[in-house]
Amino acid sequence: MQPASHSKISRPIVLTGDRPTGPLHLGHFVGSLRSRLTLQETAEQFILLADLQALTDNAGNPSKVTSNVMEVALDYLATGLDPEKSTIFVQSQVPELAELSVLLMNIVTVSRLERNPTIKAEISLRGFDRDIPLGFLAYPVSQAADITAFKATVVPVGDDQIPMIEQTNELVRRMNAICGHQVLVECAAQLSAVPRLPGIDGRAKMSKSLGNAIPLGASPDEISKAVRKMYTDPNHLTVDTPGQVEGNVVFAFLDAFEPDRHALEELRAHYRRGGLGDSLLKRRLEEHLQSVISPIRERRSLMARDRSVVTEMLRMGNERARSRAAATLDEVKVALGLSYF
Amino acid sequence: MQPASHSKISRPIVLTGDRPTGPLHLGHFVGSLRSRLTLQETAEQFILLADLQALTDNAGNPSKVTSNVMEVALDYLATGLDPEKSTIFVQSQVPELAELSVLLMNIVTVSRLERNPTIKAEISLRGFDRDIPLGFLAYPVSQAADITAFKATVVPVGDDQIPMIEQTNELVRRMNAICGHQVLVECAAQLSAVPRLPGIDGRAKMSKSLGNAIPLGASPDEISKAVRKMYTDPNHLTVDTPGQVEGNVVFAFLDAFEPDRHALEELRAHYRRGGLGDSLLKRRLEEHLQSVISPIRERRSLMARDRSVVTEMLRMGNERARSRAAATLDEVKVALGLSYF
Repeated sequence: MQPASHSKISRPIVLTGDRPTGPLHLGHFVGSLRSRLTLQETAEQFILLADLQALTDNAGNPSKVTSNVMEVALDYLATGLDPEKSTIFVQSQVPELAELSVLLMNIVTVSRLERNPTIKAEISLRGFDRDIPLGFLAYPVSQAADITAFKATVVPVGDDQIPMIEQTNELVRRMNAICGHQVLVECAAQLSAVPRLPGIDGRAKMSKSLGNAIPLGASPDEISKAVRKMYTDPNHLTVDTPGQVEGNVVFAFLDAFEPDRHALEELRAHYRRGGLGDSLLKRRLEEHLQSVISPIRERRSLMARDRSVVTEMLRMGNERARSRAAATLDEVKVALGLSYF
Repeated sequence: MQPASHSKISRPIVLTGDRPTGPLHLGHFVGSLRSRLTLQETAEQFILLADLQALTDNAGNPSKVTSNVMEVALDYLATGLDPEKSTIFVQSQVPELAELSVLLMNIVTVSRLERNPTIKAEISLRGFDRDIPLGFLAYPVSQAADITAFKATVVPVGDDQIPMIEQTNELVRRMNAICGHQVLVECAAQLSAVPRLPGIDGRAKMSKSLGNAIPLGASPDEISKAVRKMYTDPNHLTVDTPGQVEGNVVFAFLDAFEPDRHALEELRAHYRRGGLGDSLLKRRLEEHLQSVISPIRERRSLMARDRSVVTEMLRMGNERARSRAAATLDEVKVALGLSYF
């Protein structure tokens, strides 16, 4: 028992998740899902379907969020996330997160949140201007509640999210100071080693709403079409002309999906000096994509037929998440004197 | 059965309560407790010990709040509030209120809250300037959650609180519009018919922190001393000089506590034309105060000896409040599509 229990204690606790506003796509696969498959073997991983967070800027259209919770859960399972190894749960089904949020909201000022660069960027991105929903301004606090409720030590994020992690740790330190001892735990950002997958049109971000994404449930034909449409080098007009690999979406995808790294370097050199056609490259990429997506799609469509499996998985995850979050919330409430009974 | 059940349905639902930052005093008795004694006979009354709200501007000193929850509960019982007739509960023990708050926070903007005159006044009163805790800016939303969770139709408030009721009804209308049908219920402010009791020093507000309050547990001697110190008319130097009743604290107290309204009018006239001394008036007032406070103090000290009665009462109230709030929250979650299971 000793070694097993010891190794369990020293495992990092990871909190990660997605805003369920649409089914996931290859960008998510490369950016986060793949590393979650590794993390579930090496860490204690909590994966959050952040429906409440998604509602902070979709309050007027809740079905955009709620209808996608099951879709994203399907994507998780289809990708190989294992509910026995990872705790997959729905934010709104863990009331302790709302309670912890409310307590954390008292120890951060409005102006501190308004200075948060991530929030600033997202406010301008959404064109909120002064009409920021209060829930949206508060979402870094809600995120801090999600992270700290599970005492997560590691949070995988993009570099644009680092201010959110700093914000979380500020709240942790302040709450611990008020409690008089360490109740919450600071976390560290884990930056992805993999560059973000561009859209098939060459835009920096793959996104369903931009119409440049390949969903994880894409059919063989959809994959084919997407690869054919993929942006390469517009000046690479004949096979023989030297081609550019920078900004070339096919190479960005090969970077993410070509297992033979040596062969990839040769392809890159060949393309640069000329003599390598787009169609050959695309054929190679398509093969990889078909073989990556095919088992995901099949598992996905199998499970989509009987959603009770997904429902059962979420029910179990919610329960496990609740018991962990409740334990932390209880510690906080006891420390603050809010346990009267 | 028919008439009884009908009369039950048509009873108004009242939500009221206090921020537990100190034991209650005669100002509370006149301003709210007395009318709650009436309301518990005519309405379905929910009385909230708003510990979470009190934490929004006392986050660094939670014991100021938590240590007073039991004190205020004692005051309630000692005054004659009946846990069988009124549901007396502690805000932090009803997690559904935090959940509903979080949902309401998405449908109000930061600028709308900053424009709220009550919030504006309270921000300047507390000297927050730009360092407003997020929880404080959000407290009208949390208050709206408290009100709407119980589908309260009547909220007794001071006239400075009317913007809060308007804010609540805005949230109700917006939430109902999103839900597509009426889930939450609008409420009406009930303004007190009784003028606010001044401090014994003549300042407009009686407050423990100003040192001008008479607590509900005051001893006979404390009551005596307080009445002797009471501000009257500084120009009323001899019995024979005409005295001023406006701004005269003794008359303000007699207004609140003299049962013989006709005698009071005569006293007022007599004082005005001269010939009525302060000491006689004060003796009369003291008698009233002693007889009002005496049974409260006795019940209070009796119950303070065995707090299990209070604890049991709150436990019961929390449970009753939770089941009501949970029913409303459930309706909201179903309407928003947040009930996946």
